[in-house]
Amino acid sequence: MPLIQINPEAVEQRYSTLNSIGVIGGDLKNGFLRPPYSEAETSAINYIRMIATAGGLCCHTDGVGNLIVETPGQFSGWIETGSHIDTVPGGGNYDGTAGVVAGIEALLAIVQSSVALQRGLRLRIWRGEESATFGVTSIGSRAAFGQLDPSALQQCYNGENLADAMRQQRADPAMIHSGQATITQRQIDAITAYIELHIEQGKVLECSAKDIGIVTSIRGSKRSWITISGTFDHSGATPMGVEFRHDANLAMAHIMVKLDQLLIRANSEGANLVQTCGLINPPGQSANTPALLDNAITKVSGAVCFSFEVRGSHAERLNSYCAEAFALIRDTADAFAVSVKIDTFSDQQGVAALDSDLQRLLTRGCDALDLSHLSLDSGAWHDAGAVAQQIHSDGQSVPVAMIFIPCRDGISHSPDELSTPQQIAKGASLLASTMAELACMA
Amino acid sequence: MPLIQINPEAVEQRYSTLNSIGVIGGDLKNGFLRPPYSEAETSAINYIRMIATAGGLCCHTDGVGNLIVETPGQFSGWIETGSHIDTVPGGGNYDGTAGVVAGIEALLAIVQSSVALQRGLRLRIWRGEESATFGVTSIGSRAAFGQLDPSALQQCYNGENLADAMRQQRADPAMIHSGQATITQRQIDAITAYIELHIEQGKVLECSAKDIGIVTSIRGSKRSWITISGTFDHSGATPMGVEFRHDANLAMAHIMVKLDQLLIRANSEGANLVQTCGLINPPGQSANTPALLDNAITKVSGAVCFSFEVRGSHAERLNSYCAEAFALIRDTADAFAVSVKIDTFSDQQGVAALDSDLQRLLTRGCDALDLSHLSLDSGAWHDAGAVAQQIHSDGQSVPVAMIFIPCRDGISHSPDELSTPQQIAKGASLLASTMAELACMA
Repeated sequence: MPLIQINPEAVEQRYSTLNSIGVIGGDLKNGFLRPPYSEAETSAINYIRMIATAGGLCCHTDGVGNLIVETPGQFSGWIETGSHIDTVPGGGNYDGTAGVVAGIEALLAIVQSSVALQRGLRLRIWRGEESATFGVTSIGSRAAFGQLDPSALQQCYNGENLADAMRQQRADPAMIHSGQATITQRQIDAITAYIELHIEQGKVLECSAKDIGIVTSIRGSKRSWITISGTFDHSGATPMGVEFRHDANLAMAHIMVKLDQLLIRANSEGANLVQTCGLINPPGQSANTPALLDNAITKVSGAVCFSFEVRGSHAERLNSYCAEAFALIRDTADAFAVSVKIDTFSDQQGVAALDSDLQRLLTRGCDALDLSHLSLDSGAWHDAGAVAQQIHSDGQSVPVAMIFIPCRDGISHSPDELSTPQQIAKGASLLASTMAELACMA
Repeated sequence: MPLIQINPEAVEQRYSTLNSIGVIGGDLKNGFLRPPYSEAETSAINYIRMIATAGGLCCHTDGVGNLIVETPGQFSGWIETGSHIDTVPGGGNYDGTAGVVAGIEALLAIVQSSVALQRGLRLRIWRGEESATFGVTSIGSRAAFGQLDPSALQQCYNGENLADAMRQQRADPAMIHSGQATITQRQIDAITAYIELHIEQGKVLECSAKDIGIVTSIRGSKRSWITISGTFDHSGATPMGVEFRHDANLAMAHIMVKLDQLLIRANSEGANLVQTCGLINPPGQSANTPALLDNAITKVSGAVCFSFEVRGSHAERLNSYCAEAFALIRDTADAFAVSVKIDTFSDQQGVAALDSDLQRLLTRGCDALDLSHLSLDSGAWHDAGAVAQQIHSDGQSVPVAMIFIPCRDGISHSPDELSTPQQIAKGASLLASTMAELACMA
């Protein structure tokens, strides 16, 4: 394996420019605002385009606004990397951006090395991976494969719908409307490998003091609103017990504890899922459930709602667990004499297994570069998931791998998000060496 | 016992006027708005004053705005009733008002009967019993006994503080400021008995199909905000288990379930308490705990807050239970690696036992009037509680009793609140007959 080292100083230099694009109020303490199809996202993409062009790479933009950076020449196979450069409002500059910086540095380093390319190298900067603004995840990658539901075009952020935001950045919403892919089946067949570098967004690497995480699978998710309706009653005059109290809050508490116990059992039997009730009675939900506003300190609770998210890589396991969880929720509501509504509003299938050959190659790369490593699931969704769901004409999935690097305290989607230039450079070195190894194979 | 029957038609007639005072938008479906020391409360009081005067009763207002209606003449002992006529915003016209209507009808019926009064009869309409607007309960009755904390004067409703609201209704906040009672010790000594009629605000009478509840005690309450701080983390990338997740919402759920179990055990050992977690993450609390706004569907919860109220008649049992509950809350928070803040903002002592002689007299009255009855605690606080806490010069408490009447579905503090004229008339007949019996004793 050709060993290609990326310099932390090179990473630092890219960040010195990127840290000035889309910073809220010009102060890094506020975090970044680079929404999908915004001027800020385009500016960041254009900066990478400039570096790439200066380094002798070819650049073009596809119909839905994704940037494609390639080594010049004709190749029958391509070794790809990719990431995104948009951020959640108030997010950091590492979730996505670290993968872009690692990718461009990897391509530049390989072409400057003595490696003889048998296959081309490509970096894709996908538009709009983050769902925090338009409520749709992986816009650019799913649109590129013609797989984004056209209803996404009507989603709004700041009073503007996605279609209009796209037009402002010279991307064509009609392609999404008609489901037309920008990457043909022939081009998919030519993707020999796709490797994405991303910050972990968790603490597993940090806690175990490893440089690199080699990702085994990407979790999908099922998200639901659980709304419980009880009966408002005087908190003093209503005796305890379910024959008098139909207490929505108490029913919710019992449901959450039972779900906690259900998951512990399921995981002990190998389900490998995580579940989170992140939001309870968020301000926006009273529009859907006005009774939430009738709760009071001195009333038995008549209404409560909470979000329920389950994530897992294996769609079947995820679905069968959710069926069990929903039954538990309904049974517990019955037992507490309250009614319950379960509204599943998002169902994103995961990737049960990333490519095992690429995982082995990454392991060899870590050893060759003297990087400590472990294997782990990706808890978060990534564009790599959309690539891994593409199928070659021979019926095999596109081989996809992911490299995780540590981030401080596992924090992401926050101004406190941080991976150091050293950490990024280590990951980029692994990415570059592995891409080079794959590219010089006959 | 002289049997005095109050006619449902008389009750209905009073309501035909009272139903037009302080109705929101002029439509009974919206409920009432008669806040403490409002024009609407004063108008309702003035209507009763007019009826009383027309019926030959004497009326005057004390320094803090309470109306006192009396039989004319000098008496060494007084048989009193009392209630309030203010409402919570959007409340009904029975909580409080039913007691006022029953009281005035009782006095008028007794003076029109052949009963020879050895003791005077008195109706007190206390100002501002409801705490929903200024956040202070039993303003008029506690102020009359010089026992209202002067800090109440600074409490605001609709941008006006209580002191200004009082002035607008010709009441004197200076008396509250200086703690000066409007009822002297000599006058307290002259209160031979105080009997308040109120709607139950619960379903016990309705469920057991009884006309009358004879109240044995009045529950006090201790109210706290429980604020839990966890750590915001990515909901997909953070593994399950307390070593990775410091989940505020999950900790809260476990706390609520454990509190539920703790109370079941305490009540099985005779504690006779009720507890309610009525509010979770109410909109106002994010001013105190801004982190509440950082929760998200895709984050492990970093913050949650909820109200915790315990009610009971016996102060000692209430306090010792709360001590145990608070320890449980802290221990459970520790177990889930989150921090917790317990802020007890209200601590109202109950009345462990109302007067047993009066309870026996009410029982006899029910039998004589052929009214079905049972004994029960008052879950809600009432002005009668403030009266029961007054002490005669001989060291005995003022003898206090309460009559409960049924209300539909146990509903109160709602436009749906309802006691029928027949139900109110039955209670008023018991009140009148019992007051007459007490007033004609030598």
